[in-house]
Amino acid sequence: MTKLSWGLVGGGAGSQIGPAHRLGAAVDGEFAFVAGALDHRAEEGRFYGRSLGLAPDRAYGDWREMLAGETGRADRVDLVTVATPNATHFEITKAFLEAGFHVLCEKPMTMTVEEGEEIVRIARATGKLCAVNYGYTGYALVRHMRAMVARGDLGRIRLVVAEFAHGHHADAADADNPRVRWRYDPAQAGVSAQFADCGIHAMHMASFVTGQEVETLSADTVSCIESRVLEDDAMVNFRMSGGAVGRLWTSSVAIGRQHGLSLQVFGEKGGLRWAQEQPNQLYWMPLGGRLEVIERGAGGLSPEADRASRVTVGHAEGMPLAFANIYRDMAEAIRAEKDGRAMDPAADLYPRAEDGLRSMAAVFAVAASGKAAGQWTDARPPMFRD
Amino acid sequence: MTKLSWGLVGGGAGSQIGPAHRLGAAVDGEFAFVAGALDHRAEEGRFYGRSLGLAPDRAYGDWREMLAGETGRADRVDLVTVATPNATHFEITKAFLEAGFHVLCEKPMTMTVEEGEEIVRIARATGKLCAVNYGYTGYALVRHMRAMVARGDLGRIRLVVAEFAHGHHADAADADNPRVRWRYDPAQAGVSAQFADCGIHAMHMASFVTGQEVETLSADTVSCIESRVLEDDAMVNFRMSGGAVGRLWTSSVAIGRQHGLSLQVFGEKGGLRWAQEQPNQLYWMPLGGRLEVIERGAGGLSPEADRASRVTVGHAEGMPLAFANIYRDMAEAIRAEKDGRAMDPAADLYPRAEDGLRSMAAVFAVAASGKAAGQWTDARPPMFRD
Amino acid sequence: MTKLSWGLVGGGAGSQIGPAHRLGAAVDGEFAFVAGALDHRAEEGRFYGRSLGLAPDRAYGDWREMLAGETGRADRVDLVTVATPNATHFEITKAFLEAGFHVLCEKPMTMTVEEGEEIVRIARATGKLCAVNYGYTGYALVRHMRAMVARGDLGRIRLVVAEFAHGHHADAADADNPRVRWRYDPAQAGVSAQFADCGIHAMHMASFVTGQEVETLSADTVSCIESRVLEDDAMVNFRMSGGAVGRLWTSSVAIGRQHGLSLQVFGEKGGLRWAQEQPNQLYWMPLGGRLEVIERGAGGLSPEADRASRVTVGHAEGMPLAFANIYRDMAEAIRAEKDGRAMDPAADLYPRAEDGLRSMAAVFAVAASGKAAGQWTDARPPMFRD
Amino acid sequence: MTKLSWGLVGGGAGSQIGPAHRLGAAVDGEFAFVAGALDHRAEEGRFYGRSLGLAPDRAYGDWREMLAGETGRADRVDLVTVATPNATHFEITKAFLEAGFHVLCEKPMTMTVEEGEEIVRIARATGKLCAVNYGYTGYALVRHMRAMVARGDLGRIRLVVAEFAHGHHADAADADNPRVRWRYDPAQAGVSAQFADCGIHAMHMASFVTGQEVETLSADTVSCIESRVLEDDAMVNFRMSGGAVGRLWTSSVAIGRQHGLSLQVFGEKGGLRWAQEQPNQLYWMPLGGRLEVIERGAGGLSPEADRASRVTVGHAEGMPLAFANIYRDMAEAIRAEKDGRAMDPAADLYPRAEDGLRSMAAVFAVAASGKAAGQWTDARPPMFRD
Ligand SMILES: NC(=O)c1ccc[n+]([C@@H]2O[C@H](COP(=O)([O-])OP(=O)(O)OC[C@H]3O[C@@H](n4cnc5c(N)ncnc54)[C@H](O)[C@@H]3O)[C@@H](O)[C@H]2O)c1
Ligand SMILES: NC(=O)c1ccc[n+]([C@@H]2O[C@H](COP(=O)([O-])OP(=O)(O)OC[C@H]3O[C@@H](n4cnc5c(N)ncnc54)[C@H](O)[C@@H]3O)[C@@H](O)[C@H]2O)c1
Ligand SMILES: NC(=O)c1ccc[n+]([C@@H]2O[C@H](COP(=O)([O-])OP(=O)(O)OC[C@H]3O[C@@H](n4cnc5c(N)ncnc54)[C@H](O)[C@@H]3O)[C@@H](O)[C@H]2O)c1
Ligand SMILES: NC(=O)c1ccc[n+]([C@@H]2O[C@H](COP(=O)([O-])OP(=O)(O)OC[C@H]3O[C@@H](n4cnc5c(N)ncnc54)[C@H](O)[C@@H]3O)[C@@H](O)[C@H]2O)c1
Repeated sequence: MTKLSWGLVGGGAGSQIGPAHRLGAAVDGEFAFVAGALDHRAEEGRFYGRSLGLAPDRAYGDWREMLAGETGRADRVDLVTVATPNATHFEITKAFLEAGFHVLCEKPMTMTVEEGEEIVRIARATGKLCAVNYGYTGYALVRHMRAMVARGDLGRIRLVVAEFAHGHHADAADADNPRVRWRYDPAQAGVSAQFADCGIHAMHMASFVTGQEVETLSADTVSCIESRVLEDDAMVNFRMSGGAVGRLWTSSVAIGRQHGLSLQVFGEKGGLRWAQEQPNQLYWMPLGGRLEVIERGAGGLSPEADRASRVTVGHAEGMPLAFANIYRDMAEAIRAEKDGRAMDPAADLYPRAEDGLRSMAAVFAVAASGKAAGQWTDARPPMFRD
Repeated sequence: MTKLSWGLVGGGAGSQIGPAHRLGAAVDGEFAFVAGALDHRAEEGRFYGRSLGLAPDRAYGDWREMLAGETGRADRVDLVTVATPNATHFEITKAFLEAGFHVLCEKPMTMTVEEGEEIVRIARATGKLCAVNYGYTGYALVRHMRAMVARGDLGRIRLVVAEFAHGHHADAADADNPRVRWRYDPAQAGVSAQFADCGIHAMHMASFVTGQEVETLSADTVSCIESRVLEDDAMVNFRMSGGAVGRLWTSSVAIGRQHGLSLQVFGEKGGLRWAQEQPNQLYWMPLGGRLEVIERGAGGLSPEADRASRVTVGHAEGMPLAFANIYRDMAEAIRAEKDGRAMDPAADLYPRAEDGLRSMAAVFAVAASGKAAGQWTDARPPMFRD
Repeated sequence: MTKLSWGLVGGGAGSQIGPAHRLGAAVDGEFAFVAGALDHRAEEGRFYGRSLGLAPDRAYGDWREMLAGETGRADRVDLVTVATPNATHFEITKAFLEAGFHVLCEKPMTMTVEEGEEIVRIARATGKLCAVNYGYTGYALVRHMRAMVARGDLGRIRLVVAEFAHGHHADAADADNPRVRWRYDPAQAGVSAQFADCGIHAMHMASFVTGQEVETLSADTVSCIESRVLEDDAMVNFRMSGGAVGRLWTSSVAIGRQHGLSLQVFGEKGGLRWAQEQPNQLYWMPLGGRLEVIERGAGGLSPEADRASRVTVGHAEGMPLAFANIYRDMAEAIRAEKDGRAMDPAADLYPRAEDGLRSMAAVFAVAASGKAAGQWTDARPPMFRD
Repeated sequence: MTKLSWGLVGGGAGSQIGPAHRLGAAVDGEFAFVAGALDHRAEEGRFYGRSLGLAPDRAYGDWREMLAGETGRADRVDLVTVATPNATHFEITKAFLEAGFHVLCEKPMTMTVEEGEEIVRIARATGKLCAVNYGYTGYALVRHMRAMVARGDLGRIRLVVAEFAHGHHADAADADNPRVRWRYDPAQAGVSAQFADCGIHAMHMASFVTGQEVETLSADTVSCIESRVLEDDAMVNFRMSGGAVGRLWTSSVAIGRQHGLSLQVFGEKGGLRWAQEQPNQLYWMPLGGRLEVIERGAGGLSPEADRASRVTVGHAEGMPLAFANIYRDMAEAIRAEKDGRAMDPAADLYPRAEDGLRSMAAVFAVAASGKAAGQWTDARPPMFRD
């Protein structure tokens, strides 16, 4: 099996998420890293790209240069990942899609709902894959939760409780540090800070696992550190397309919580509980039964969980392998397209542009509801309203 | 030290909470159980009382009989606990207070805010102790959290996240069982089910630990089981008198959660986390530091925690001893009054009629806000509004 | 039901275990605390006894005085607890048994095997109850483990792994503190320190749960703090009467472990795991199945576990209630004897003089094997060898 | 940075450990997988190699073919991993070393002590790297434990308690399954089963973390399933070169334990606890302090831990990344050698042939001691005895 070729925009030296993408793409040997425009400073980007083994002519100084360079090649990259700061996602993703590349874009996919709708339209028109990196959905046991819900183990879903609450921006003395401050400044971050940064992961996961979309929501957004304009803590109640009630707490001032992404799902016939920090165990209680520990890698799991597992039970698989599962899914989708065959349904799980758009609509709904004392607000993108 | 004498109304054979009260009162040898009207059926109550060692003339058939009997005695009980169904708390508590007895009333103290205000007025007028059994505040480490907040370890409190979410009423097939059904029927349960039953424990604990009162709230109340009129799940956002933001989730359909009472408190200088099911460990992270495990019974805790501990570190103390701490506090208060001295400040922690009243106001605010799409609502009792 | 009357020897002001006994005896209202010789200093003992509510003539200055006083009374105590330092257990227990009292003796029951055999003979001869306070066997879920083994849920037991390893004597600077030093001094403590103090709890629990006796053992005993003569850490391998292999680690230098008593039992058909610090959860995995969490107080447990539980599921019951279960068992045994009826089999679980004797034989076997480079040694008391 | 080139022997389709090696080598982009003899069946091996992207002429049918092929190439592989069944490790490792290749050999490195000494001699003579895959030492927090011990945080080490006890061979009905049976058959597995398979990981980790070697040991080995000749459970007590006492439990019949590798280290000044199944948290208690949770990826850790971490705190890194750390260390060693510079000391942590040899000596000592009723036995290889 020859490798697919892969290019990265952003993720330069010292970036937070770059290493996870390179790990994720490399791990399974599906993608060869052959092109990149890694930094907002052309020289640094070229230098770093070469230091990572890119050929000099594919260690680009700028994404436009990369777009031009790759477009002109017979062996152009099969997939482009966009891992730059948020405000640039839209134009970069749009440009690569329109030039006929498959794209994996970091979250949030865009800065506005309108941009999100445009990306969806372009992806549909071009027929190119456009994925959004809700990478935590790559965990085997998150996929197993989805499979359990889909096959009816929980019955009708009544309630979903999602959290993404950490304490990494709790230091008031540090709040004016430019590295932190921009996130809470509407001029740079848009209409939402903590919800747009973390809350959307949790909300997307609620949808991913239940198979239901968020329709309306009511938000309580607050700035626990007073100098902030945008929220550092939010509680969002929501209603989903299949009737589930949702509750989502997100925070960046919850000192003592390292990461804090978790999901609880309660149905008529049982309840599930999972937390990102211990991702290899899933807690399941059937109605009237006992709490059971479902281990990643154990026998008897769903095909979706099996496919997303690599090492034997009892050995942790961590976040880079969750990201890797998104890449493996996309590799399968790309190969299936090349081969003109249907893709493995157990791989057909990577988040799509539609998901990125839905998140954007939710971000604006949260911001609007938060300003309007929690008024219930339509959370759907206009193009998905009926 | 001679024992104080104690009487119990309710808590008959097979009742849920009766045993915990008898344990709580007995454990430290402070109270001798000498009188009771234990059952709504006179004969059963008398019989059960005698089987528990009450003298025949103090195993009453009815609380009015007990009130008359005890009022007439020189050795009348020092304290009366009211552990009957909710709708009877008001008249029984009122009657005993007015007759000059100290009372420990089960929660909720009353069915309406007006009744709550009346109890507060009577307690103030008579000078009798009127406590409400928010027994979970008796845990040593809950008291230690309060002490940490009070002495400034966390700095200003930004955020409190409280939960009391379990799964014991999740079975739709069982929902029509009369034992469960009445709780969700407004005719019998009043304006709120799950919040009034469990949510008020969590909300009171938020106040107890932070030393702040709830001022306004917004609630999202739902009935996950459709045949129910009252809520089986609620999310309540609130604001507290010292500026803290509050979030409270309560549920009875969260399958897989056995009890589900927990509290997280986040301040400028650190965060705390505690859960009722593992009450002997408290998790504390100072800003910029590492998560630490504070063990009940360890050296270096607050006087409040020390006083509330009985056995050496590493040995669990459970819920009956938390209840016992409420009783010990009250014994100290009663003895201090008898002796005409100030009580030990480390014992001055039992919840008061004022707390019971505040809970009632919160219950009505939750119900009103829940009906009004989450409108922010004053949660203070009229007599405490300024 | 009239209360039984109870007397306590030892457990004076500031003692470690006295409060737990008074709690344990009081909690269920079975015993009235009416007599005591609480301190090795006569006046302090009398004073403290009266402060705890004893009548002046039953607040004795000395256990011999108490023995004489009680023997002469028509309303003599129904049960005497001996909670004095180890070296005095034998003579006090012997004296009370011979005078016709039921006795609950603290562990270790005696200082030698010979004394242990004598106590067993006296108990048998007098027909009086002689129990030993392996109080941790009072936990509901420990009893449930025993019931599960007895009814065959695990099949034949292959392996038992017991631990009682804490870190409370790990400070070398503190090792010469007299409060700690005597424990490691053969002149005062006998042939063993950590095994005799803690190890025997774990070994007894292994027997209690499996229903098998320890027959032979091999020990590795070490003094991690060099100034100590007796061991502060030991590993004991053993073989049991039903073929189970045993492993037991005990330590007092394991910094970071608060208490450290735990038991794992592995049979042909499943495995169990329980730890004293979180005593309300038991972990059970049937062969080929999933790990399940068994909660104290849940439905569907054994009669033994149900009888040993007081409060509803999700509420912790702690160590004082485990002790209380020993007292409740004994109350049932005493009442059954008084009433001339068979006792409730679910209460017939309190540890006996025979258990105390077996522990003594194990202590001497550990000491001997430890000195002989781990030589396998008969761990049975002579009177139980066939 | 150009990639190093890497070859694999063993690890064919469906093998257990092959995927972990390929992940480990690929993850950081240090090694390109260019050659392999993956299967004991030539055709299957060639086919599978090509399916993984090997060039046809480097997808060898046999390790001798690979040895010949690679030896003849200018671009011969920089590193060969030997991941075949145990009995073949010696000859394959020997052959590649002698031909001048660096080798990473799976554990156990050899089947006898003599073979182990020979490998050490060859490695020393050729100057080639010869590593043994004690891959669990690659975890960042295991390396942090080692660093803490080395810099004196714990003071002198008193005690090490290691476990590797799981339940995957507990099914008696399955014991005759050839897949399982050979492991307990001396003809195929040598002198030890469970200790040689799992115990040596735990024992090596004890040495790795403390920096002390095992000198003498006493073992209790048992076959819980009777049809087995070799042990499925063992307890090993040992003494280390720096005076530490060691205890090690290994089992394959401990139903309910998924993997069961853990380490506790107790010194004069503090204690550490770590478990492989939750590898991103390390529990540390300084003497007289509180238990603290050290998170992988947090600030303030040792250079060794920092170097071994890839993603931000709060995100799990799992076992494949631990393996990857061994590969990264070796890449650094190989590059340093090529560049004629000293290697990064924080990378100089991969286990060596000497470690593989020591494990072999321990295996034979355990087997001998187990047969001799636990007699204390020299556990050092003859060449390391003084
Ligand atoms: N999916 C997840 O779990 C997850 C986690 C963290 C971050 N992210 C997302 O990843 C994105 C990057 O975040 P980060 O934390 O790595 O940011 P970062 O600031 O650490 O790194 C951004 C990198 O992008 C480079 N860059 C900036 N502009 C560029 C341009 N125009 N062309 C090429 N390179 C450019 C920078 O030089 C830098 O190397 C953000 O959108 C963020 O929301 C997602
Ligand atoms: N604080 C807590 O944690 C907690 C926990 C559980 C219950 N409660 C409260 O305790 C109260 C009792 O709850 P429960 O679950 O034990 O109820 P229950 O129905 O199990 O028992 C109620 C008992 O009261 C007796 N009774 C009823 N009416 C009486 C009357 N007029 N006079 C005398 N006895 C009467 C009944 O015969 C019965 O024995 C409720 O108000 C409940 O909210 C509090
Ligand atoms: N079962 C358990 O879990 C457990 C736990 C701790 C202690 N113990 C046992 O309990 C016993 C007491 O231990 P402790 O830690 O409470 O000891 P302690 O030293 O704290 O208290 C001993 C008490 O006995 C009194 N005393 C001593 N000699 C006496 C005498 N001759 N007559 C009357 N009173 C006398 C002392 O004045 C003191 O009040 C020991 O045998 C110990 O092994 C058992
Ligand atoms: N370090 C660890 O944590 C760890 C974990 C598991 C296994 N192991 C070790 O890895 C080795 C392999 O174990 P496994 O469980 O993967 O075994 P396995 O039986 O699953 O796979 C062995 C593979 O080696 C191939 N093979 C056999 N003989 C060969 C030969 N002569 N030439 C080329 N290929 C050959 C087989 O075809 C098969 O693909 C063992 O030595 C085992 O102890 C180590």
